[in-house]
Amino acid sequence: MTADFEPGSGRFPSPGPICGQSAIELARAIRERRLFVREIMDAFISRIETVNPHVNAIVSMRPREELLAEADAADTALAQGVEAGPLFGLPIAIKDLALTKGLRTTFGSPIFARHVPDVDDYFVERIRRAGAIIVGKTNVPEFGLGSHTYNPVFGPTLNAYDHRLTAGGSSGGAAVALALHMLPLADGSDMGGSLRNPAAYNNVYGFRPSQGRVPGGPNFEAFMSQMGIEGPMGRSVADIALLLGVQSGHDPRSPLSLDGHEDFLAGLAPRVQGARIAWMGDLGGHLAVEEGILDLCTQALAQLEGAGATVDSHVPDFDFEALWQAFVTLRHATSGCALKAHYDDSDRRSQLKPEAVYEAEGALRLEAPATFAASQRRTAWYQTVVRLFEHFDYLALPTAQVFPFPVECHWPEEIAGRAMDSYHRWLEVCTLATMAGLPAISVPVGFDPAGRPMGMQIIGRPRGDLSVLSLAAGYERLTPFGVR
Amino acid sequence: MTADFEPGSGRFPSPGPICGQSAIELARAIRERRLFVREIMDAFISRIETVNPHVNAIVSMRPREELLAEADAADTALAQGVEAGPLFGLPIAIKDLALTKGLRTTFGSPIFARHVPDVDDYFVERIRRAGAIIVGKTNVPEFGLGSHTYNPVFGPTLNAYDHRLTAGGSSGGAAVALALHMLPLADGSDMGGSLRNPAAYNNVYGFRPSQGRVPGGPNFEAFMSQMGIEGPMGRSVADIALLLGVQSGHDPRSPLSLDGHEDFLAGLAPRVQGARIAWMGDLGGHLAVEEGILDLCTQALAQLEGAGATVDSHVPDFDFEALWQAFVTLRHATSGCALKAHYDDSDRRSQLKPEAVYEAEGALRLEAPATFAASQRRTAWYQTVVRLFEHFDYLALPTAQVFPFPVECHWPEEIAGRAMDSYHRWLEVCTLATMAGLPAISVPVGFDPAGRPMGMQIIGRPRGDLSVLSLAAGYERLTPFGVR
Repeated sequence: MTADFEPGSGRFPSPGPICGQSAIELARAIRERRLFVREIMDAFISRIETVNPHVNAIVSMRPREELLAEADAADTALAQGVEAGPLFGLPIAIKDLALTKGLRTTFGSPIFARHVPDVDDYFVERIRRAGAIIVGKTNVPEFGLGSHTYNPVFGPTLNAYDHRLTAGGSSGGAAVALALHMLPLADGSDMGGSLRNPAAYNNVYGFRPSQGRVPGGPNFEAFMSQMGIEGPMGRSVADIALLLGVQSGHDPRSPLSLDGHEDFLAGLAPRVQGARIAWMGDLGGHLAVEEGILDLCTQALAQLEGAGATVDSHVPDFDFEALWQAFVTLRHATSGCALKAHYDDSDRRSQLKPEAVYEAEGALRLEAPATFAASQRRTAWYQTVVRLFEHFDYLALPTAQVFPFPVECHWPEEIAGRAMDSYHRWLEVCTLATMAGLPAISVPVGFDPAGRPMGMQIIGRPRGDLSVLSLAAGYERLTPFGVR
Repeated sequence: MTADFEPGSGRFPSPGPICGQSAIELARAIRERRLFVREIMDAFISRIETVNPHVNAIVSMRPREELLAEADAADTALAQGVEAGPLFGLPIAIKDLALTKGLRTTFGSPIFARHVPDVDDYFVERIRRAGAIIVGKTNVPEFGLGSHTYNPVFGPTLNAYDHRLTAGGSSGGAAVALALHMLPLADGSDMGGSLRNPAAYNNVYGFRPSQGRVPGGPNFEAFMSQMGIEGPMGRSVADIALLLGVQSGHDPRSPLSLDGHEDFLAGLAPRVQGARIAWMGDLGGHLAVEEGILDLCTQALAQLEGAGATVDSHVPDFDFEALWQAFVTLRHATSGCALKAHYDDSDRRSQLKPEAVYEAEGALRLEAPATFAASQRRTAWYQTVVRLFEHFDYLALPTAQVFPFPVECHWPEEIAGRAMDSYHRWLEVCTLATMAGLPAISVPVGFDPAGRPMGMQIIGRPRGDLSVLSLAAGYERLTPFGVR
């Protein structure tokens, strides 16, 4: 399957002339009146009806008639001269961890199986305002815990390339829907790698923006929770830049959201020449990494070197075990405390998966000095990273420590002979960018001999989102693989 | 003393032609070569030698010869055409909570009585780079705890207007040095009102910038600690804008520092007309406030109304007691945890004042869910405030709940017949801006019949620093009092 770029090889018809296009192409075709929104909507609904039952990526799908009526309204508005936003007429499905007004939002939890919010998440408001049409939700792990998309409400989402394998997560539904051309664009969110891991596992791009780039809310604790963030996923870097331009920008309702607003698509300048990249590999042996992953990454780096980048193997002197423990602690201190509301209610507690109980019980055991010490460790890591960027423009790491694993397995308990001591330890490689709040994209690096996809993280300096996207776009031009 | 604008009436000679000038005037006179830096330095050293022994505002003063040599070097550099920074040649003393490379930094604690740092705080680096000459430090309460400036290393700082009274704090040395013309400008910092309270108590201006406006570090825990911030103090709003322009602006070493850099002095546009002000008074009786304070504030508001502002009494519906408890909790979770390092060492513990022990023990008792709940409360307050700003441009509150009290008293245990249940409860009125991270200036509102100064807080919308300074500058033009 390595040389076969049609996901789910042979299983599905080709995406055809509409679903095969990029988000940018479709948006342009709509604005230039070469395609009706209705035609596009119709094509994507059909595609979803054909493909989705096999992979379960999209959930809470809205009725066809409702969507076609909305598409017709968009066509009418456009004919009447309405100003078309950057996503005008594009179908999108929102990750089921984000609130969608009037559309069921379950967080993958049976507690919320019938929950219909009366507000949108801030970034969802923006996606609507940009003209996209929300067709449904993308599937997630229960409360986004763990990087494997299954839950008792909707069941598992299956890998786009091999339906026996996990889609990754927590933006697993989004990644699979993109890979299989059921959507032109998708949002995701990322605390421990949830935009990056499923991108790697389904051969698409997933971008974790700088902390604060996409304003979070309204249902967030807004000051302590600085590890999770929404971001874009796509089949191309330009599509990601398009969506990020819509999601990002200061919102006064979100106290830590970054100032200003940038047009990432206009600013995108594909560039590899002269980029100084620190390849951090397995952190000098600290990380357990499945055989074959580092090789795929170094092949990708060789391509970047061939195009004029400088790649140096470099691992900063830091206590990475302590950094991981700090991540675990800060997650208890935020996600764990948030989950405690359910844990404290015996009815709801019985509906929590073990990972949620682990987080809530971790929060209950946690004392303030330990939280503060973890945040001091985080600060030290940030300072280390800032000094690294005096010598390098980018850091590179594998996106995952293990290839997509069988869907029945809840999490890898062992990698390369080393035991994983928690449900999320196997995601450690993704927490380095999280802990420093850095922008990080997962770019596809191809497949192992068994046809399992993999990605590599390209991490940029603080708030260097555009720089990361520009290198990724340069890389994209060099690489023959990746779903387009 | 109400109509007498010479602080310490009769006690000190007039500041004279050099020390009587504003920072802006002095900086201009230096750039235009109308005054030598040496003349200015000489005048301020003499002023400090005359006045400071009576009030103890400046500590760790550098030797006269060293300072004059530095002044001479500045004059030589200017004669040779060096580009003069915005503070070029101005004497300044740095608050003794901030690190000054090579200059003793005690934090007001006997533990650090001999501590000489080998780095500057980030904002101190900027003040040096802008050309200011650091002459010494300004006195603080031990570890900045409490708004009354005394400590076992240097003793108390005395109020500029009445030496029997407290200077306030924690930027007490800075406020008194300004009020008595020992410095043209001073920095301060503020968690629970430390830039505002001493400004009010000494009839000068003190501005708490938006959270993140002045990058904190290097010795901070940089992610959780979002209540304290450095800022400027001055005898005029324009001087404050000058210093803020130097202190502020993004520093990549400080992960939550706001983007960009603004020239606040150039942007300053004094303006009262049309300003919509919500007067929050004593929060509908929630706050104990000493008689006479609200009257001084409403007189100031009447002046603003006379100049075209709209002032409405308005108290948002919020559980202010819960907000105060959240402040106490978050302070344990940050300051308390930081102080724990000293508390854990029996030698050092014996050198801590009771307030430091209270904070450390509060941290020890604190569990993660309580911290998270406090931060959720803080988030709810922020959201309430954002909605308030849909109807108002500014919020106004008294700066202090009590006039300057006798210097022997550690903190007011009762206000208006109501008991204060902790060392910092009397500062509650300042925590409203802190908890939402809002920019807030204390402007002078005159004196009570006993000659004790008072101030009023003008609070702006999130990141609206320039807007706050512009209203304050408009107010400054209307008011006959205030030290200039």
